[in-house]
Amino acid sequence: MEKDFLYVAISNNIASLIRNGVLKAGERLPSVRLLCQEHGIGMNTAKRVFLELEAQSLIESKPQSGYFVSPLPYQRLPLPEVSKPSLVSSPKEPYELIRKVYATMGRKDLMLFSIGAPSGELLPLSKLNKEIMYATRQLRGSGTEYEQLQGNESLRRMVAARSLSWGGNLREDDLVTTAGGMNALSFCMMALSKPGNTIAMESPCYPGSLQLARSLGLKVLELPTHPVTGVEIDALRKVVNKIDLCLLVPNFNTPLGSCMPDENKKEVVQLLAKHNIPLIEDDIYGDLYFGNQRPKCCKAFDTTGTVLWCSAVSKTLAPGYRVGWVAPGKYRDQIMKLKLVHAISSSTITQEAVANFLKTGRYENHLRKMRLTLQRNYQHYIDGIAEYFPKGTKTSRPQGGLALWVAFDKKVNTSELFDVALKQKICIAPGRMYTLQNQYENCMRFSLGLYWTDEVQHKLKQLGRLIAS
Amino acid sequence: MEKDFLYVAISNNIASLIRNGVLKAGERLPSVRLLCQEHGIGMNTAKRVFLELEAQSLIESKPQSGYFVSPLPYQRLPLPEVSKPSLVSSPKEPYELIRKVYATMGRKDLMLFSIGAPSGELLPLSKLNKEIMYATRQLRGSGTEYEQLQGNESLRRMVAARSLSWGGNLREDDLVTTAGGMNALSFCMMALSKPGNTIAMESPCYPGSLQLARSLGLKVLELPTHPVTGVEIDALRKVVNKIDLCLLVPNFNTPLGSCMPDENKKEVVQLLAKHNIPLIEDDIYGDLYFGNQRPKCCKAFDTTGTVLWCSAVSKTLAPGYRVGWVAPGKYRDQIMKLKLVHAISSSTITQEAVANFLKTGRYENHLRKMRLTLQRNYQHYIDGIAEYFPKGTKTSRPQGGLALWVAFDKKVNTSELFDVALKQKICIAPGRMYTLQNQYENCMRFSLGLYWTDEVQHKLKQLGRLIAS
Repeated sequence: MEKDFLYVAISNNIASLIRNGVLKAGERLPSVRLLCQEHGIGMNTAKRVFLELEAQSLIESKPQSGYFVSPLPYQRLPLPEVSKPSLVSSPKEPYELIRKVYATMGRKDLMLFSIGAPSGELLPLSKLNKEIMYATRQLRGSGTEYEQLQGNESLRRMVAARSLSWGGNLREDDLVTTAGGMNALSFCMMALSKPGNTIAMESPCYPGSLQLARSLGLKVLELPTHPVTGVEIDALRKVVNKIDLCLLVPNFNTPLGSCMPDENKKEVVQLLAKHNIPLIEDDIYGDLYFGNQRPKCCKAFDTTGTVLWCSAVSKTLAPGYRVGWVAPGKYRDQIMKLKLVHAISSSTITQEAVANFLKTGRYENHLRKMRLTLQRNYQHYIDGIAEYFPKGTKTSRPQGGLALWVAFDKKVNTSELFDVALKQKICIAPGRMYTLQNQYENCMRFSLGLYWTDEVQHKLKQLGRLIAS
Repeated sequence: MEKDFLYVAISNNIASLIRNGVLKAGERLPSVRLLCQEHGIGMNTAKRVFLELEAQSLIESKPQSGYFVSPLPYQRLPLPEVSKPSLVSSPKEPYELIRKVYATMGRKDLMLFSIGAPSGELLPLSKLNKEIMYATRQLRGSGTEYEQLQGNESLRRMVAARSLSWGGNLREDDLVTTAGGMNALSFCMMALSKPGNTIAMESPCYPGSLQLARSLGLKVLELPTHPVTGVEIDALRKVVNKIDLCLLVPNFNTPLGSCMPDENKKEVVQLLAKHNIPLIEDDIYGDLYFGNQRPKCCKAFDTTGTVLWCSAVSKTLAPGYRVGWVAPGKYRDQIMKLKLVHAISSSTITQEAVANFLKTGRYENHLRKMRLTLQRNYQHYIDGIAEYFPKGTKTSRPQGGLALWVAFDKKVNTSELFDVALKQKICIAPGRMYTLQNQYENCMRFSLGLYWTDEVQHKLKQLGRLIAS
């Protein structure tokens, strides 16, 4: 157990150095012997470190010479362009397409490349079950009572404590819990808008947020977004006078997996604050970083209380628990009033279970393993796409999260591909879902949250053949 | 166990005959011996039946003569008048008062006459805990997975099967689950209204519904309501051209506990359908009838699909589970779309636990006991009010549910009483909460869902003294 942890920690550390460019492609790594001395570990552990890095295709061995840093996986495939959505709100909802994709949810006969949530194999199920049982024993009324309006206190305390890791300085009183991440976004959008208002979002963008905005009668302004650094600030600056509200997913958004650099986050927060425009920050993927450090949040640069930081455990722990939260800044009372009238409270037992899971440190352990799995899956996809998909296929370079964005030749239509693939028991997420405009028909999103097996590999190959034909 | 059930069933049956007026006040009951013969039971069981009925003050013994039917409890106290709200929408929100009352939620140092949910002692906690554990073992991914959008299939099947008891003929596909009853009302109201629309409701009325309507920008039209037979149909008829939507709690609404007769339900449904006005029917108290038969629902008379029948287990089983549902008639797709964009799904584990609790018949057993407890509490309140409260105090005559409405002399102001009583560790629910107009200041609502103890009795006496002074 102790040893397992050690080899994972060391290989993770080296992987980060490679990914962050500290160790460059072609550079020679220290010998096994040197690694032992440096870290005070045994030969076997050192060998496992190298094997692990090799399995991730981050290093390669050369006979009689030792280990060398491989070219980074994403350097093997070209990057998609910065998106160029129309800057005029255009409500062409892909509702029928979304309905078709969501209808496949939970079907076990399909290969769900489309799922947005992590597969059960990636989750600490038996530990969570224990927390649920413990919660029913510990809670007053066994968890049948209404939770207090603001939400489970111990959960809020833990989320506040963890906020230090991303530059937040939250106290438990700054937080309000919600029934999952979508519910947090819903309360924020309802509190801060009225029908006819305009909201700015990244493009491509999570379909749930687009649909939510439309259902509240908002106009959506889709912003050009860079596949690596996120939303283009110049574009936001140009339209800042036309918008009432902004929703961003600065860390590892779906479908791109981009991550805004700190200075961009700061600039966006200042720009919006200057115009008194609230920023809803969806940070649901923030804990799933592939680097060696949790990225900051926009909320870390919020001095005026106009950033509403939202997150949940739906992408990291248990989608079905419906446990999320928001730090709504100066809008806290409005959010609490909305929660009272639309929900009264959220689920008592699952909040307590998650609170305990966080408190015991099990969450950090779990995240460490999960991040590694997601990175491996990313590598599997890159390898598969390079081998099975048409030449010239472009991929985003996720720095964390659950999504990989793929762009094909303009001739490929992924909405049509959806129907064809479904007949072969493959479900994909077509690019058209991620916009309200007629765009991204040649794109699709893969889920890094799959449990990788030979069957997945096989279906990826099959999908590659379908696209080629 | 068998015997317990028998004496409860027989005494319940006789209680119903008394309450329904089949056995009249002063009438002599059969002797213990005759009761044994009639029901094939032993002397001890027969004696327990009489003791139980006596404890409920439904019968009284006369020395050497046997048992006689007592005057009905509610005949001892006068009935409040039919409410006379202004028929012009008037948004004077008692938000500050509601905030104060809700802030006491969960405080163990207070006597909460105000609580709307049943006390934990009335709930089958250990059986529910077992269902939670069973659910985590049975569910795919231990309940961490998103539940399907429409909601747990087995729960919907059980709710549909139970609908036969109230004249419904639902199939599982007619139902959509929600995160509790409030969430069901919220989806219905959001789906069927836009800001500026007018919604009609009973008066006095559940504060949550009033607040919900206001938060969506609706005008609320409060309707005159009879404390026994519910909403006044003539009043509804007069304003039917001015409203866009109607929300009623036909069975045992809070705070009155009234129950609309079947013919009234039918008439209301036909009237609204004729004008194509959707009816949101909140039936959250429907299973808590004091008579011998579950009352019908408006939905039973719905031939056009314009009644949205909402319910939950929040008042009968587990408020903190957040398990509710709606049979939205012809608006089903709209409700499902709203659920998708605002919530994705509701809590997986608690839905499964409730489904199993219903499937095994435990729910019916539990309800049988709970109804008896609520009736006893009703009796306790009536006895206490008759003894401790000023003469002329009026009470509603709940035929089920959790609420008892009390009206004092016009000089009494219950909003002021709230502050005074709180200092003596007593929390009441002032009448002003139940309206958007300046009304009901001399009224308050008691909760039948308390666990009755000497301490409750004592605090009721204390409250009576406060009111008198």
